[in-house]
Amino acid sequence: MDKSKDPDKATIVLFSGELDRALAAFNIAVAAALMGSQVTIFFTFWGLNVIRKRRPRSRAKGLLRKLMRRMNKGGMTKLKLSRFHMWGIGTWMMKLLMQWSNMPGIEEMVRSAKSLGVRFVACTTTMAMMGVSREDLVDEVDDLAGAASYVDNAMDSRLNLFV
Amino acid sequence: MDKSKDPDKATIVLFSGELDRALAAFNIAVAAALMGSQVTIFFTFWGLNVIRKRRPRSRAKGLLRKLMRRMNKGGMTKLKLSRFHMWGIGTWMMKLLMQWSNMPGIEEMVRSAKSLGVRFVACTTTMAMMGVSREDLVDEVDDLAGAASYVDNAMDSRLNLFV
Amino acid sequence: MDKSKDPDKATIVLFSGELDRALAAFNIAVAAALMGSQVTIFFTFWGLNVIRKRRPRSRAKGLLRKLMRRMNKGGMTKLKLSRFHMWGIGTWMMKLLMQWSNMPGIEEMVRSAKSLGVRFVACTTTMAMMGVSREDLVDEVDDLAGAASYVDNAMDSRLNLFV
Repeated sequence: MDKSKDPDKATIVLFSGELDRALAAFNIAVAAALMGSQVTIFFTFWGLNVIRKRRPRSRAKGLLRKLMRRMNKGGMTKLKLSRFHMWGIGTWMMKLLMQWSNMPGIEEMVRSAKSLGVRFVACTTTMAMMGVSREDLVDEVDDLAGAASYVDNAMDSRLNLFV
Repeated sequence: MDKSKDPDKATIVLFSGELDRALAAFNIAVAAALMGSQVTIFFTFWGLNVIRKRRPRSRAKGLLRKLMRRMNKGGMTKLKLSRFHMWGIGTWMMKLLMQWSNMPGIEEMVRSAKSLGVRFVACTTTMAMMGVSREDLVDEVDDLAGAASYVDNAMDSRLNLFV
Repeated sequence: MDKSKDPDKATIVLFSGELDRALAAFNIAVAAALMGSQVTIFFTFWGLNVIRKRRPRSRAKGLLRKLMRRMNKGGMTKLKLSRFHMWGIGTWMMKLLMQWSNMPGIEEMVRSAKSLGVRFVACTTTMAMMGVSREDLVDEVDDLAGAASYVDNAMDSRLNLFV
């Protein structure tokens, strides 16, 4: 009864910009989408890095934003592990181990999520703060929105996570 | 039907003591409160630092607690970014960028949350462990409670997050 | 009405392998179980370390997995704090402070959780990736499962957290 009224929705806030956390978020998103749920991933703060292009298209305004961008690089292939990154060696090892276990990498996960209809929403507040424009984000992004839109969506979701 | 019985409640566990995570938690809390939800933030572990006064009022009992307090300083103006803190430079840059984007700082967020009726609950278990007393916490704190009280509240919430 | 149909379920993803986060997860799990909820903890990524035996029983296949295992040690007594670990000194201090506050340690929490019927599920995907087999996990683990099983369980839970 309850289920027929309320379609199964899942909403994940991806706050973290680490490879391992992004993988966990996408794994859950893809699994939920495969089971017929309407899934939304809301990318905020460092999570924006997952959906940023490797080379920014827009011009950063001001020295500080230029600096911040230089430090805080985007691009899903550039994500680091939260542990054992070790100047790239640990992250490279983990990616290899994932390949050997036939586990899809982050790029494949993003593609799967997209093809299953997972909605990608980028947080406008953190975009403004970090000087990221729409053109700096990958095409897979469906929407730009703020916290109010997130809450609205989350309140109707059966599964809410903050990753 | 369902909604009329169950008022929209949101409960956020703020476990982390980093500026960026605290901001994310408060952004969501304020957005939910603006939409008429009853919001509770449950501060535990490092999240207690957000609602601790900069100078403790109580006396720490024992050398270890004194040491722990000296390392683990409280005060919402003292929070660090989880990335690029760089001895304060990165955190200072981010605060400046936030100002330029007209994004409220953590102190303003706490005030907004309070004025919108967001309930602040401090976790008694971690307070005891870290030697933090009620008088070391800011006046905005409404309640002290344990995990059972949290679970009770969370079970009735439409939105639950662990930040 | 609603409650009588849907038993109170709580599902926690334990992604993190830090002592403080594991303690928070178990505190909530035990509190929920004490209140009569059916609780599941889904251990994935670094969270697997909490339920790994200190000495692996299985043989790691390949040099990389051997290396990864050597870096990423298991065992709940070996977990580190996310802050102030300081080569073990800070973690040791915190454990002492916990004892003094009569707060149960992680091993006691695991036992309590188990005796209250909390279900321990290990994530098969990350187990394969990290070269962890069933025999490397403590006996308390009830099940091995993937993300689909997690989502299925989470969709019926009133309380979902990602720790």
